[in-house]
Amino acid sequence: MAEAKVLSGAGLRGQVAGQTALSTVGQSGAGLTYRGYDVRELAAEARFEEVAYLLLYGELPNAEQLAGYLKKLQGLRDLPRELREVLERIPANAHPMDVMRTGASMLGNLEPEQDFSRQNDVADRLLAASPAIMCYWYRFTHQGVRIACTSDEESIGGHFLHLLHGKKPSELHRKVMDVSLILYAEHEFNASTFTARVCASTLSDLYSCVTGAIGSLRGPLHGGANEAAMELIERFARPEDAVTELLAMLARKDKIMGFGHAIYRDSDPRNEVIKAWSKRLADEVGDTVLYPVSEAIDKTMWEQKKLFPNADFYHASAYHFMGIPTKLFTPIFVCSRTSGWCAHVFEQRANNRIIRPSAEYTGVEQRPFVSLDKR
Amino acid sequence: MAEAKVLSGAGLRGQVAGQTALSTVGQSGAGLTYRGYDVRELAAEARFEEVAYLLLYGELPNAEQLAGYLKKLQGLRDLPRELREVLERIPANAHPMDVMRTGASMLGNLEPEQDFSRQNDVADRLLAASPAIMCYWYRFTHQGVRIACTSDEESIGGHFLHLLHGKKPSELHRKVMDVSLILYAEHEFNASTFTARVCASTLSDLYSCVTGAIGSLRGPLHGGANEAAMELIERFARPEDAVTELLAMLARKDKIMGFGHAIYRDSDPRNEVIKAWSKRLADEVGDTVLYPVSEAIDKTMWEQKKLFPNADFYHASAYHFMGIPTKLFTPIFVCSRTSGWCAHVFEQRANNRIIRPSAEYTGVEQRPFVSLDKR
Repeated sequence: MAEAKVLSGAGLRGQVAGQTALSTVGQSGAGLTYRGYDVRELAAEARFEEVAYLLLYGELPNAEQLAGYLKKLQGLRDLPRELREVLERIPANAHPMDVMRTGASMLGNLEPEQDFSRQNDVADRLLAASPAIMCYWYRFTHQGVRIACTSDEESIGGHFLHLLHGKKPSELHRKVMDVSLILYAEHEFNASTFTARVCASTLSDLYSCVTGAIGSLRGPLHGGANEAAMELIERFARPEDAVTELLAMLARKDKIMGFGHAIYRDSDPRNEVIKAWSKRLADEVGDTVLYPVSEAIDKTMWEQKKLFPNADFYHASAYHFMGIPTKLFTPIFVCSRTSGWCAHVFEQRANNRIIRPSAEYTGVEQRPFVSLDKR
Repeated sequence: MAEAKVLSGAGLRGQVAGQTALSTVGQSGAGLTYRGYDVRELAAEARFEEVAYLLLYGELPNAEQLAGYLKKLQGLRDLPRELREVLERIPANAHPMDVMRTGASMLGNLEPEQDFSRQNDVADRLLAASPAIMCYWYRFTHQGVRIACTSDEESIGGHFLHLLHGKKPSELHRKVMDVSLILYAEHEFNASTFTARVCASTLSDLYSCVTGAIGSLRGPLHGGANEAAMELIERFARPEDAVTELLAMLARKDKIMGFGHAIYRDSDPRNEVIKAWSKRLADEVGDTVLYPVSEAIDKTMWEQKKLFPNADFYHASAYHFMGIPTKLFTPIFVCSRTSGWCAHVFEQRANNRIIRPSAEYTGVEQRPFVSLDKR
C-alpha cells in the first residue's frame, strides 16, 4: 500500500473528514448555524419539530407540513410491549445512557430498517420514541409505575415533561424544552455524530448508527457536562461559598465542567439563550440560590481563567427548575441530537465511501512465534 | 478557529488517524501481524485464547498464564437471567447482528464497567459471553429450547459449537474454529475498530465501544462478506454452472463478495490458511460440490478480474461444513474481533485525545429566519 499520511493533530483535530451541509460551528458571521439559520433565531422563533424537520428533510416546513409532521411524530410515540419488557429488566442503578443505548438497539430488532428508502420514517420513530424509552424505564424502576407511553402533548419536549411528571407541563416549561432541544440538535462532526457517520459508512442500519452515537455521547468528555455542572452548583447554599470553593478548585487544577469549548474560542452562542431562560425559570420558582450561584461561578471562571460558559452550564439550573432529575440530563441530549445524528447518516449514505483510516504502527518488529513450552 | 485541512481521500483512506502497536496490515515482510507475530504462524501454532491474551495483555501467555486464562474465560460464560429474558424477546427473524448489539448493550446495564482499572475483566467477560448471546437467542427462537449457556469445552470455539449443536464437537472442528477466530481477531483501523476508538475517545465505557463496533461490523461493506459468499456458492450444483453464471454476473457488473481487499493488493494472507482447512473439512464430509464450486469461482475471478479471495471467501464453505447456519457467520466474527476491539480501546484510553474531526461545509449560506406564516 502507499505510504500513509501522518496528520499533525491527534484526535483528527482540524482535519476535514468529510462534507456536510447541516451546520457550521464557529465560522465567521454566526457561532452556530443549522442549514444556514442562526441557532439563536431558531431558538427564539421556531419549535423543535420545525428544526428537526429542517435537519431531516432539508428545509423549514410550511404550516401544512408542520401540522402533518407533528401528527406523524405523535403517532410514533408508543413503545412495543417487548421493548417495555426489556426496559423493566434494566436495574434502577443502571447508567441512563446505557438504557437509551439498549432501548434504541432493541427497537432495531423489533422494527428493523428494511431498506434506506424509508430512512426518514426510522429517524422520526427514534425521535418520537426516545422520551418514552427514558421515562418508562425511569418511572418503572424509580417509582414502580408502568406509565402510558403516549400523551396528547403536541411537542416532543412537552411530551417528555408530561411522561416524566405524569401531568401537563406549563407553557413556560414547554417553551424552555423546545429551546433546549433546538440548542442541542446539531453540532457538525462532534465525536458522537462522527461515530454515527463511521457506522453509516459501512451501510449499516440507522439503529446501529444511533446506538453507537449514544454510546459515544455517554463519555464524560462529550455528553454529561450539564450533569457535572449540576453536581457542582448544587453543592453551594450561597454565591460566596461557591466563589471560595471554586478558587480552591482552580488552585488544585480541578476540571470545572460546563466551561470552554473545543471549537468556540470567545463564547458559545448557545449560552446566552439558555442563560436567559434559566433566569426566567429562576424568577418563576422564586429561586435565590441556584441561579445566583451559577452566575457567581460564571463570573469567577471568566475573571480567573477567561473561560466562558458553554451550552451545558446554564442548562443544569434550567433543567433543575423544571423538576428534571440530574441523571436524565444527558438522555434529553439524546432526544434532541437524534435529529442531527440521523441527518448526518442520510448525508453519509448519499455520498458514501467507507471510513477506514490508517494507523501509525508503534509496536514491536516482526518476530518468530515461540511455542508454549518455550515461553 | 483555524482553517481546517482538507484531506485528499474520502473516507480517510490512507490517512493516519492514530497509533497502534497491535497489528500491521499489508506492510512489507508479512501480510498481517499481531504484535509482531505473523498471523499464519499464530493460526498454525496457537489457540485463539493465546492470541486474545496476546492482544489484550500484551504478550503470549506462558503455560501457567494460559491455563489461568482459559479457566477465567470458562467462568465468565453464563448469561444473567435478565439478559436471557431480553434475548427471548427478540424475534426469530431479527438480524443476528442486531441481537449481538443488543446483547452486548444489555450486559452493560447489568454488569457496568465501574472504572477503567478493571477493563480487562470486562473485555474477557464480553469475549466469553458472546457465544452464549448468539446461541441462546438462536436456539430459543429457532428451536424453542432454553439452552444452558455453559459447557465443559476448554476453548471459545469449541464452546460455541457445543452450544449451537448441543453436543461435543470433533477435534477437527475445534481446531478450525480456533483458526477462524485467530484470523478474524484483529485488523488495524478498519471501520468497526475505528468506531470503537472514536467511542473510547470520549472516555465512554467498554460496552458502549463494543456495541458501537458491532453496529459498524453489521454493515454489508464491512462484515457479512462470508455470508454473501455462502449465498453465492450454494446456488450451484456443479463447478461448470458456477463458472457460467459468474461470467454472466461479471458481464452485468454484479458485485461478487469475498474477493479483493481495500488494503491488500496481491493476496489476503488469511486466505491460504482458511482455504486449506476448508479443503480438509470438505474431505472429511465427502463434499463434491461446495468446495469444487468455490475453487471454480476463485479461479474464474483471478482469470477474469485478477481478484484474489479474501479471508471471507473460503470461510463460507468451512463454516457450512461444520453445520453453522449462514446467518451466524457475522456473529462469529463478533466473538473473534471483540479481542481486537477491546485491545484498541485500551490503547486509545492509554493515550487519549477525543476524536473530533472537522467537516467541509457544503450547505447554503447564512440566511434570515422565515416565520411559519411566510413559508
